[in-house]
Amino acid sequence: MTQVENDFSGKKVNYYFDAAFSDLEQLTTKETTILITDENVFQLHQQKFDGWKTIVIRAGEEHKQQSTVDVIIGQLIAMEADRKTFIVGVGGGVVTDITGYAASVYMRGVKFGFVPTTILSMVDASIGGKNGVDVGVYKNLVGLIKQPEFLLFDYSLLQTLPYEQWVNGFAEVIKHACIKDTVLFALLEKFTLHDFTTNATLLADLIERNVNIKTTVVVNDEFEQGDRKLLNFGHTIGHAIENLHQLLHGHAISIGMVAACNLSEKLNGFHFDEATRIVKLLAKYHLPVDVETEYEKVFEVLKMDKKRNLKVMNFILLNKIGEAVIRPIELDELHKHLKEIL
Amino acid sequence: MTQVENDFSGKKVNYYFDAAFSDLEQLTTKETTILITDENVFQLHQQKFDGWKTIVIRAGEEHKQQSTVDVIIGQLIAMEADRKTFIVGVGGGVVTDITGYAASVYMRGVKFGFVPTTILSMVDASIGGKNGVDVGVYKNLVGLIKQPEFLLFDYSLLQTLPYEQWVNGFAEVIKHACIKDTVLFALLEKFTLHDFTTNATLLADLIERNVNIKTTVVVNDEFEQGDRKLLNFGHTIGHAIENLHQLLHGHAISIGMVAACNLSEKLNGFHFDEATRIVKLLAKYHLPVDVETEYEKVFEVLKMDKKRNLKVMNFILLNKIGEAVIRPIELDELHKHLKEIL
Repeated sequence: MTQVENDFSGKKVNYYFDAAFSDLEQLTTKETTILITDENVFQLHQQKFDGWKTIVIRAGEEHKQQSTVDVIIGQLIAMEADRKTFIVGVGGGVVTDITGYAASVYMRGVKFGFVPTTILSMVDASIGGKNGVDVGVYKNLVGLIKQPEFLLFDYSLLQTLPYEQWVNGFAEVIKHACIKDTVLFALLEKFTLHDFTTNATLLADLIERNVNIKTTVVVNDEFEQGDRKLLNFGHTIGHAIENLHQLLHGHAISIGMVAACNLSEKLNGFHFDEATRIVKLLAKYHLPVDVETEYEKVFEVLKMDKKRNLKVMNFILLNKIGEAVIRPIELDELHKHLKEIL
Repeated sequence: MTQVENDFSGKKVNYYFDAAFSDLEQLTTKETTILITDENVFQLHQQKFDGWKTIVIRAGEEHKQQSTVDVIIGQLIAMEADRKTFIVGVGGGVVTDITGYAASVYMRGVKFGFVPTTILSMVDASIGGKNGVDVGVYKNLVGLIKQPEFLLFDYSLLQTLPYEQWVNGFAEVIKHACIKDTVLFALLEKFTLHDFTTNATLLADLIERNVNIKTTVVVNDEFEQGDRKLLNFGHTIGHAIENLHQLLHGHAISIGMVAACNLSEKLNGFHFDEATRIVKLLAKYHLPVDVETEYEKVFEVLKMDKKRNLKVMNFILLNKIGEAVIRPIELDELHKHLKEIL
């Protein structure tokens, strides 16, 4: 187990790499801790939860809603959780998002940590303190930014990860490469998903590289006044289609990244050849690059995106692979472009 | 209008005393602002809301629940509120608590301000940034601490305040006197509720004195590590009986203060004569000093109080009038005392 301490605006967050789930006992005591996980993770790893008080929620993005938070709050009360109770979310992005949120508002906030169990939550969702729930089709419309006490990375949990969840997670890895890291982009072009799923060292290096990319961005801009916005590359159109078509998050933002590449060509002089490299890389990792949709419906959902500011949407475009920019686009103009690119 | 700027851990909060509701237009623009109020306030002051986008919630503590927050979030979406939307809660403690909470989690937080319309919210509830909702009978079990941008005090709003709401508000005024201010205590002994309701200068001075007491405490201890806990005098038993018997908050904490005086005599050498002065003062302001209840039921609710820490409750007792202390009491011991004092 390797410990790395990060500082988010004065708040210390410890990352434990190469750790085992059982190391959790070194970080918090069973008596005062409550784990939150979903039914899938609980079934696959039931013995790991032995002796831990555990709340099991239903699995899937469709349950990332306030009603699930209400259920969690009810169970915390039934378990007589108090302000000294420590809460640990064990799962993918839905579990960590909802756990961070419930912990942040229960009794006006109790401490919490995460054990991410998917590629997506290891490289992205569990990092940076954004938490919350969807409201109907609107992604993450309610929530907070509050950092956990720790993240514990147990790569062995990935052994039970379904293939589609590997694909799902690589969308955020490719996003990091597109906006920040040409070396990572080349690495992803060189290897295949099969290489990463079968070579433990290659995988551990990949995860830590991505954790570091996201952490560096968030540490420098926790409340998303500048650079953190770049992490939303692919997420504006991605979020709009995700719940509309009940896509996996990674699938949705893969399609969103292709659309954003397209816009980058139109509005930002992004080169066609580079856009093609990105589309090829997404396809190589078995991610979808388009979807049958109705642009008017997408536009209706997209208008409620948190990146909107009155009549302008702050869109993330690429200058080149490894370099992204924030570009305000008028809603009317965006509406016109959507018709052409979707 | 007199402006006073307060600093809560670096966050500036402006208080506007002697202001008029119409001054709101100087503080925020109608186009980007949404008011939240309840049906009572809206009916009494309908013309004041002309031209303001307004969400009207149902009145009463029984609606200070997550379901009302869900309704507010739904209406904010329907109004296409975005991150630049400013939200103003206009009402008593239920409205300001729920408005502060909804604004703090909508799109991970938008700015908000308050126009308190009751004595209780002017001298207590609107100050200090605690917000949230009840969960069933459990008071304020879910919420946050986040400061508003401003408080606007328009005393003329009190002209329509029902008599029972005057009584309700004076419980917190008497609490401030008990824990912090012997001069205020003497002032309350000298005058009557009738004096304060009919003498505008006397009333304005009283409100500002109480605002200052609470603000000073919170500014020095925003996250309730020490002195802010003293403001919970009367609130541990008070909160437990409030929703159990559907009492007004002021009524509940009046009874809670009498019980806490009783405990202070037993455990803290608080003098019988001083306890009697407090009981007389509460009665003089038409506040109840006891209630028919079942101490076992009270104990069951009280166990979930946020001031509990494992098997110990941090209870607020008096040394003398004007001076309070935090005293940890074992739950078992508290259970025994409850049987005697309730």
